[in-house]
Amino acid sequence: MTQLIDRDLTDAGPDEPSSLGAALSRTLDGQFADRRAAAKASVPSENLLREPGQSVEEAREWVLNRLVELSGAGFGAAGIPRDADEDPDPAAAVVAFEVLSYGDLSTVIKSGVQFGLFAGAVANLGTRWHQDTFLPDITSMKLLGCYAMTELGHGSDVSGLETTITYVPESDEYEVHSETPEATKAYIGNAARDGAMAVVFGQLLVRGKHHGVHAVLVPIRDETGAALPGVTIADHGVKGGLLGVDNGMLRFDRVRVPRRMLLDRYGGVDASGQYRSPIENANRRFFTMLGTLVRGRVCIAGGAGIAARSALSIATRYALKRRQFAAPGRPDGVLLLDYLTHQRRLLPAIARAYALGFAQNELAASLVHIQGGGEHTERDQRRLETMAAGLKATATRFANDTIQECREACGGAGYMAENRLVGLRADADVFATFEGDNTVLLQLVTKALLTDYRQVWGDLDRVGMVQASARMVGGTVLERTAANLLVDRLVATARRQPEELALVDRAWHAYLFEERERHSLESLARRMRRADSRDFESVNRLGDHMLFVARAHLERVLLEAFIAGIESCTDPKAREVLERLCSLFALSSIDADRGWFAEHNRISAGRSKALGAQLNKLCAELRPDALALVEGLGVPASWLGAEFLGS
Amino acid sequence: MTQLIDRDLTDAGPDEPSSLGAALSRTLDGQFADRRAAAKASVPSENLLREPGQSVEEAREWVLNRLVELSGAGFGAAGIPRDADEDPDPAAAVVAFEVLSYGDLSTVIKSGVQFGLFAGAVANLGTRWHQDTFLPDITSMKLLGCYAMTELGHGSDVSGLETTITYVPESDEYEVHSETPEATKAYIGNAARDGAMAVVFGQLLVRGKHHGVHAVLVPIRDETGAALPGVTIADHGVKGGLLGVDNGMLRFDRVRVPRRMLLDRYGGVDASGQYRSPIENANRRFFTMLGTLVRGRVCIAGGAGIAARSALSIATRYALKRRQFAAPGRPDGVLLLDYLTHQRRLLPAIARAYALGFAQNELAASLVHIQGGGEHTERDQRRLETMAAGLKATATRFANDTIQECREACGGAGYMAENRLVGLRADADVFATFEGDNTVLLQLVTKALLTDYRQVWGDLDRVGMVQASARMVGGTVLERTAANLLVDRLVATARRQPEELALVDRAWHAYLFEERERHSLESLARRMRRADSRDFESVNRLGDHMLFVARAHLERVLLEAFIAGIESCTDPKAREVLERLCSLFALSSIDADRGWFAEHNRISAGRSKALGAQLNKLCAELRPDALALVEGLGVPASWLGAEFLGS
Repeated sequence: MTQLIDRDLTDAGPDEPSSLGAALSRTLDGQFADRRAAAKASVPSENLLREPGQSVEEAREWVLNRLVELSGAGFGAAGIPRDADEDPDPAAAVVAFEVLSYGDLSTVIKSGVQFGLFAGAVANLGTRWHQDTFLPDITSMKLLGCYAMTELGHGSDVSGLETTITYVPESDEYEVHSETPEATKAYIGNAARDGAMAVVFGQLLVRGKHHGVHAVLVPIRDETGAALPGVTIADHGVKGGLLGVDNGMLRFDRVRVPRRMLLDRYGGVDASGQYRSPIENANRRFFTMLGTLVRGRVCIAGGAGIAARSALSIATRYALKRRQFAAPGRPDGVLLLDYLTHQRRLLPAIARAYALGFAQNELAASLVHIQGGGEHTERDQRRLETMAAGLKATATRFANDTIQECREACGGAGYMAENRLVGLRADADVFATFEGDNTVLLQLVTKALLTDYRQVWGDLDRVGMVQASARMVGGTVLERTAANLLVDRLVATARRQPEELALVDRAWHAYLFEERERHSLESLARRMRRADSRDFESVNRLGDHMLFVARAHLERVLLEAFIAGIESCTDPKAREVLERLCSLFALSSIDADRGWFAEHNRISAGRSKALGAQLNKLCAELRPDALALVEGLGVPASWLGAEFLGS
Repeated sequence: MTQLIDRDLTDAGPDEPSSLGAALSRTLDGQFADRRAAAKASVPSENLLREPGQSVEEAREWVLNRLVELSGAGFGAAGIPRDADEDPDPAAAVVAFEVLSYGDLSTVIKSGVQFGLFAGAVANLGTRWHQDTFLPDITSMKLLGCYAMTELGHGSDVSGLETTITYVPESDEYEVHSETPEATKAYIGNAARDGAMAVVFGQLLVRGKHHGVHAVLVPIRDETGAALPGVTIADHGVKGGLLGVDNGMLRFDRVRVPRRMLLDRYGGVDASGQYRSPIENANRRFFTMLGTLVRGRVCIAGGAGIAARSALSIATRYALKRRQFAAPGRPDGVLLLDYLTHQRRLLPAIARAYALGFAQNELAASLVHIQGGGEHTERDQRRLETMAAGLKATATRFANDTIQECREACGGAGYMAENRLVGLRADADVFATFEGDNTVLLQLVTKALLTDYRQVWGDLDRVGMVQASARMVGGTVLERTAANLLVDRLVATARRQPEELALVDRAWHAYLFEERERHSLESLARRMRRADSRDFESVNRLGDHMLFVARAHLERVLLEAFIAGIESCTDPKAREVLERLCSLFALSSIDADRGWFAEHNRISAGRSKALGAQLNKLCAELRPDALALVEGLGVPASWLGAEFLGS
């Protein structure tokens, strides 16, 4: 494109952040600071971003080449043990995904398909033979593959998959078959162009008996790239974004594979032709196999968070350069970020990005502990899954909303692809859908909370429940996300005279966040007990209440992670800024639900009215540190890829 | 793309709506029903939609050809008088834009550039000579042109444009010059490829004296398509959407044009070399010239509304076909639209689409009256501009949010370009920015309300203001958007005992909507009086309050338009449905601001809590009529362009 203006007029600034920015960044990186820094240093950064305007075919080719390059730099094998003596290193996998998320999102999603889902299924659902046979070729990009779970008929409802995997005793094989049109595997990455093999999920049938969902390796393409006999492949073509990922559909017409191709760590047919599984309960087996999805959700949550950080960095840096409308004392025009309305668009989102970042650290740490061989119970595993589902939904919602806000905050310039925001927006859009639809995931969160609740309160009758609720003061039923006696203490302090506390008092925030979750969960539990579980409508009409509980829970998770994050900060100036930022996050959340707090008598009218002014005040106080705040988000200026910043 | 499934499994249904759908559609089309039907029938519908995945060049070529086709069908000249004896027919122009908005949005935007902005500038800012000389070639697509107002430096602040138009007495010419890099014209449609001429806005200088912003016709390309001497053209290339519109940048290096090329209806140099204008006051002249922008805003508001209707039609029809998760009594799975959570995503948006549609009719009628030669005052013109600014901001915000909600409500299928939602989303995105940035437009609305307020209340001191406020009960300062004594009566009824009324009582809704606007406007006026207008920060800190007032005003405009729309409905069943839909719209709006209502003692805690259940109930009641509701939105099933509906 012809450049009409001298791009040197604008400048993204040096990569080196200010000392405050560096301190904020260190705090936000937390326990992963060193690993993240190392990963950032090791990523081949020349092809980090893809040119806008490529055709689907050009984008796919570019991304494939990039993946080969990344595999060569060790990103393919990140986290996967090289041999039986080495422990798995889930932190490496998570950090690799994060770092790639600073760049082209097609690349990170295709890498997620190849190195996360495909390799992950082999590593987690397969046995030693599968791992030894296939993983080296997968991580080195010699064997590209698909994770063929979703079908046209069933996406969210995995137990309803209609593909069958039938054991054929005569030949000691499995026959993979798409029983219905709805059984067609859909939206499958690596299917349309590059995949030579697929992990196919389907119902296992052995001598007429159903054993539920299992996964089997099925070759789908020959060396020339043509579909193998019995396999029909279709291309989804153009999507809303992620053009470099070759999503497609797969149908199987009685395709046979040898018995050993079943990923049978959790169940399969043995040499004697009998079905065997180390997990007797079929339901538990199903959830154990699905449990392997958790890493994907942790990664997507992290990637979404980083996409939002890139957008916030771009929009904030632009708002620190762009002037519009002269004003008294400002003849050259007012910087966009000096407008209160602009501050209110960007600064609370930055605050929330920090909250999510701290929560993501805790989530990743939990994953690293559990998948890295740390001691844990089944309950810990379930809690990890709940947190991953919830943060995936929260982070991807945030990314969608925030990138769009940033796009609009940059006006017409924001709509030009060369300034990157529209590409981020288009690519991140589907994060709200894949790896679990957000609405479904939030319902999972609430179901888990209800289960906890029932386990604590048992089968008390209604009167007993009400009495028990009264005793819940102190919040014992609420799971803490970090070891934070601090939060308990804050809440206990606030409970006595909440309205006496300052609006920026953390104790008041912690108290309100806990009350929102506790009260809404309790009332939902009561309504659930009254509902007739055999009547769809009776439960269905609680749907909005269920979503509210999940959101209330996640807001508390975010606040408590933020509080723990501040506790870990040793730089006094950074700590001061983080305290303000945390107040901005907390009060924005309270403000958004102030109708709920008012109608439940948790906030007085006067205090509720004062929230807006306090939010404005915090924005004004944080305004001078805006650049440091986005530096703290950790996106190197040279990686922003926005022409109007000169980057 | 290879089709793996039989698309006949799904079916968008016949174009012929149900009798309820038809009655709703008639009501929603209101006074424009016949003209809209005629326009729909006359549009060449074969190339209504563009294939996804075209390159920028292919898209531009396709759209250019489509525009030629539409011009041939009379769409280019819609609304423009053929000769001096014919009255202008703004309804034809508005309806043509609306109808094109059912199809490819690049086409409608490029048609807006060519037939709306370029032709419109010649028609409205030019004299008879300009019109006779250029309009026939413009409407027949022989002369393509640009509307070169926005610059890199100034978009929202038109008075700050830096391009100069300097009269050169020696040669009786104007010299057009980009004084600074920031004076570069940016984001200009038709500039990158097709435009041969541009209406260039700049500061008029005559013998050293500034006369403010004027517009001049400047040829920019020769017959081979090459830039003319002194003109530099750059291509914006890939954008977030609207790939078929060739946006580009223009710079002028002392380009000379004959004196008559200035569009000088409102001011220019006469034959004696003197500046003359029929409007003496420079400020008034500026706003008169900008007033010609109003039609563009009316059109964009209408187009955004229709884009949202297309998305709602697609997502609702999909939700009436797609099942997920079996439930008691529903072994084949539950239809998406039977989930309460899904109803809450789509049905309130449908209700709002109706509200916007009714308001848009009033706006268009006002434009038709004023620009169609109807008697009107300057005050009427100003009210039209305020309403156009406000509804443009409201409709485009709604379109962005709604299309995205629809995309997500269709899951992975919604992300496939063949189902159209992502294309709508990408194209409609920038509607929030062009033809006036939404934030700036909302501030204009509030400024106009404040001016009205001051005119009514004069320069009362603060005590006088408070007393005067008390006398405002009855809402005299609030402009009514339609002749609705009905609303006055409703509000008066409700004011006595608001909490005694049913939640679905229209009087209660009208009362709350009016209170929200009246109270927030009054308190803003008081704060404005206290603010020091010479101090930027003093006014700046009212920014969020200003936006709240504008939104409160527009919500009332929408509600009152909805009420008037229902009054016009003669079909009893349709009326019953519209009453429910209006309640859903009104209660959704109240629910979203229930924090405000609570803290201003306009709603009790008990009533506030009951809102959610009432919204759920309304959704359940409207669910059986969901298909008719989207039929009523008027998007023919065969125009939806979503593969998964078989359309």
